Amino acid sequence: MSGANQVDDKQEPAADSLKLKLRRIIFGTVSPEGKAFDIVLIYVILFSVLVVMLDSVSWIGEAYREVFWGLEWAFTAIFTVEYVARLYCAKSRWAYASSFYGIVDLLSILPMYLSLISGDATYLLMIRILRVLRIFRVLKLANYLSEANVLIRALLASRQKIFVFFATVLVLAMMFGSLMYVVEGPAHGFTSIPKSIYWCIVTITTVGYGDITPQTTAGQMVAGFVMLTGYSIIAVPTGILTAELSREIQTHRDHRFCEECGKAGHEHDSKHCKACGHELPPPG
Amino acid sequence: MSGANQVDDKQEPAADSLKLKLRRIIFGTVSPEGKAFDIVLIYVILFSVLVVMLDSVSWIGEAYREVFWGLEWAFTAIFTVEYVARLYCAKSRWAYASSFYGIVDLLSILPMYLSLISGDATYLLMIRILRVLRIFRVLKLANYLSEANVLIRALLASRQKIFVFFATVLVLAMMFGSLMYVVEGPAHGFTSIPKSIYWCIVTITTVGYGDITPQTTAGQMVAGFVMLTGYSIIAVPTGILTAELSREIQTHRDHRFCEECGKAGHEHDSKHCKACGHELPPPG
Amino acid sequence: MSGANQVDDKQEPAADSLKLKLRRIIFGTVSPEGKAFDIVLIYVILFSVLVVMLDSVSWIGEAYREVFWGLEWAFTAIFTVEYVARLYCAKSRWAYASSFYGIVDLLSILPMYLSLISGDATYLLMIRILRVLRIFRVLKLANYLSEANVLIRALLASRQKIFVFFATVLVLAMMFGSLMYVVEGPAHGFTSIPKSIYWCIVTITTVGYGDITPQTTAGQMVAGFVMLTGYSIIAVPTGILTAELSREIQTHRDHRFCEECGKAGHEHDSKHCKACGHELPPPG
Amino acid sequence: MSGANQVDDKQEPAADSLKLKLRRIIFGTVSPEGKAFDIVLIYVILFSVLVVMLDSVSWIGEAYREVFWGLEWAFTAIFTVEYVARLYCAKSRWAYASSFYGIVDLLSILPMYLSLISGDATYLLMIRILRVLRIFRVLKLANYLSEANVLIRALLASRQKIFVFFATVLVLAMMFGSLMYVVEGPAHGFTSIPKSIYWCIVTITTVGYGDITPQTTAGQMVAGFVMLTGYSIIAVPTGILTAELSREIQTHRDHRFCEECGKAGHEHDSKHCKACGHELPPPG
Repeated sequence: MSGANQVDDKQEPAADSLKLKLRRIIFGTVSPEGKAFDIVLIYVILFSVLVVMLDSVSWIGEAYREVFWGLEWAFTAIFTVEYVARLYCAKSRWAYASSFYGIVDLLSILPMYLSLISGDATYLLMIRILRVLRIFRVLKLANYLSEANVLIRALLASRQKIFVFFATVLVLAMMFGSLMYVVEGPAHGFTSIPKSIYWCIVTITTVGYGDITPQTTAGQMVAGFVMLTGYSIIAVPTGILTAELSREIQTHRDHRFCEECGKAGHEHDSKHCKACGHELPPPG
Repeated sequence: MSGANQVDDKQEPAADSLKLKLRRIIFGTVSPEGKAFDIVLIYVILFSVLVVMLDSVSWIGEAYREVFWGLEWAFTAIFTVEYVARLYCAKSRWAYASSFYGIVDLLSILPMYLSLISGDATYLLMIRILRVLRIFRVLKLANYLSEANVLIRALLASRQKIFVFFATVLVLAMMFGSLMYVVEGPAHGFTSIPKSIYWCIVTITTVGYGDITPQTTAGQMVAGFVMLTGYSIIAVPTGILTAELSREIQTHRDHRFCEECGKAGHEHDSKHCKACGHELPPPG
Repeated sequence: MSGANQVDDKQEPAADSLKLKLRRIIFGTVSPEGKAFDIVLIYVILFSVLVVMLDSVSWIGEAYREVFWGLEWAFTAIFTVEYVARLYCAKSRWAYASSFYGIVDLLSILPMYLSLISGDATYLLMIRILRVLRIFRVLKLANYLSEANVLIRALLASRQKIFVFFATVLVLAMMFGSLMYVVEGPAHGFTSIPKSIYWCIVTITTVGYGDITPQTTAGQMVAGFVMLTGYSIIAVPTGILTAELSREIQTHRDHRFCEECGKAGHEHDSKHCKACGHELPPPG
Repeated sequence: MSGANQVDDKQEPAADSLKLKLRRIIFGTVSPEGKAFDIVLIYVILFSVLVVMLDSVSWIGEAYREVFWGLEWAFTAIFTVEYVARLYCAKSRWAYASSFYGIVDLLSILPMYLSLISGDATYLLMIRILRVLRIFRVLKLANYLSEANVLIRALLASRQKIFVFFATVLVLAMMFGSLMYVVEGPAHGFTSIPKSIYWCIVTITTVGYGDITPQTTAGQMVAGFVMLTGYSIIAVPTGILTAELSREIQTHRDHRFCEECGKAGHEHDSKHCKACGHELPPPG
């Protein structure tokens, strides 16, 4: 949910129009009704994702075609009501409609309505595939996992390093891929430079499908070098990330100072100063 | 062994009924007889596991059919005696019988008795397979490896982070798997969304069997992106874990207890108890 | 760009001969013209690399043969002008021509001129392949990524450890590879010791193509041991690297300089210069 | 070289019998002659290993059969002279002959002499294979890489943890392997429990050959769980190792105390106390 629509449950306690009530239930996460709405919605989303998945398994999809069709329309109805309600009570309708979740919400109900317009078979296949996008609604779950925030913050803090790492691996893959295209050639599966780059990414990340493998001795030597180089180099960003995280965890431990001796760096569960024994202020 | 049955060898020194003697030998790990019993049992378990394994190799299983059959009955006899003895001398019979090890102990003797009831061939196969469960008895070994406790504690301490990591990878696998189902389609091996998710887990964890591989250029580009993203993201939990472990090892280095409130886990440079403020003994 | 040709834009402000002007634009990175030149050049390089890549895809290469031929000559013309201009205005022509980038610049224009001399088909193929070397010009991008410097410095600082790691893995691969050649033999794909070493590198780095796999039980046991050993040992260099990086980041956290002797790199809790003992300014 | 034969070049400066001279050259590493002997020997070993490797490549081995035969005899002669000389001048002949390097030295010369006794073809093949053991002589190189000592010490310090990790992975592999034997069965390549355990090791270490892969949906779910579990659990030992290394590097930094204020924990390059500015004793 975009920040603009986040309801501050405490600052608007007396508001009682339908719109404000709805907003508190749909966008809010603190009031009992808001919590209940969120929990019900999450189960509906998870169930609808499960239906899309099972429907894609051919023998299940064929055996229960009518059941799945009915369930699809039920989910579309529920999500349509939710989408309209969100649009109605959002503080800024455009902000919601153009936000990531607004677009995902729209895309997850559109396919079934499009299927009414055309009965063409290939067209229906595309609609079926579009429904898969509903899976992105699962991301809303992230709001309810406080532990996920640590991960997301750690990722955001190191996004520059991850980008450089990405770029480095890509440039390495371009070079070694081109080299392998020259060494092995189209006869051994390295049919083009983009395909050789794909091989190099598969190798450098140690995935190693084995769908394209070097056949010549020279190619195997280059491949061995790529594996070892990649392996050695890839250890570096992990090291940098760990070192930075380690520093962050150690320095952001506690911001309290002892009022008696001024000692800082206390642990979160400390009640008394570890240097002079004076009582500490409560953490927070 | 469940904590409820753990014998306190020192608090009941004068007890001399058969039951208490047996309990000290079977559940206890301190007395010489208890130690000897445990060591013998571990060797029997390891040997019985080896027999089950060798029996599963078709040519060995066929060549020594009678030997293995005899050994199986011998093991079943030994484990039956042990199970009955444990039941007899356990402080709480129900607590033992319903504990994890109690169920494993029962399951490892049941198959042979079931084989007496029915001589049906397919039924016998299932019994043979059930015997494999005996391998879980190997877990009892963990009690004798003090180093394993560090690992288990580290795992328990970071179980929330591991769960978030699990969930993150699963959600990523669901998204990228669905995307690949759309991009590659059933014609290239991505026959259903669950199968595409399986492919995505195989790729993101860098296992890379190669039983399902992208064939189209678009699919290979998505796959390359999945590999790099997965690789970058997967480094984060390792980093978090290492950083937390690093902090734990550094801060919990102290063996001092507060003489006033008994609080442990002080830092090396602490002079006063962080819980009650009482002066601590000097570190050393 | 080699350091010898790096223009110090501030120390030669009044120079106005064509040569100096050109040098400031081509080798310099500070003046607006120099920046603009670099940006244009990077786009041209990236575009020319893209063309080489697309040309290598057989159906694209055949469909747009004339377009690619024209583009190739255009790029060759641009890079020839650039090469001649660099040679003309370089402080030391020989230093530039013999530097890594000088050779890459030359190699990326040579193939097209060589294609004029001979019209032989196999000869043309080799020329086509030589053009791939142009991809190494992408490395010039590294100069514009300040974050890349951290990575490069980290790699340089740990180059001795990486070399030892490289050597260790190679020796391990030689031993286990030879062992597998003895255990599995040519009949199961391990046709020679070099090939067995290639298998061992593929296995120890956990790439695992699966093009050569152990078939015998003994071979699979050795392979399992190689995987576990490799996995355990490979964790060590990562650990060493992380630990060293962690220390470096923690100790070099301070930006204070000693007012007496100019010594930098003090720790946060330092009150006196560790080199001369002079009092330090307070941190922050 | 075993410690018992290590020559202390400084404590026996006046000894001048042939035996002592030889010992200083062959076992010593400090005197110029000793250094020269070691360097020559390393090159001979590396060259002989290269010859064994090239000989194993079938087309090279057949084309240069006589050359390799001659070289083999030359190497055997050189290594025989070295072995006899080592035996002659060793402080304790038995200690050398029964040491790891003594056995490797003997095994690397035996095959050629055995080939004189029997001309049987299959026998010759075994002799050829035995020569491969000469590769273990490469280990002598380790003595000349001081950086390798850090790695070896780090490995020795964490050998208990690596053993626990080994045991944990093996037990996990036994359990999940048995489970997969039950779930997938012999029809899908999981022909026996040992083979299923091999599959599980291949999967848990993320090698992923793909020679045995789960075919059923249930099997793929278990496999996905194995991958994620293995991946999560395997991060723990790396974390523990890194954390311990990190602590070791930080605590073993310096043992000096300030004579003025008693402050400890100085850096190696510190000349003055960082707390009071008093001059520190030189590090040592």
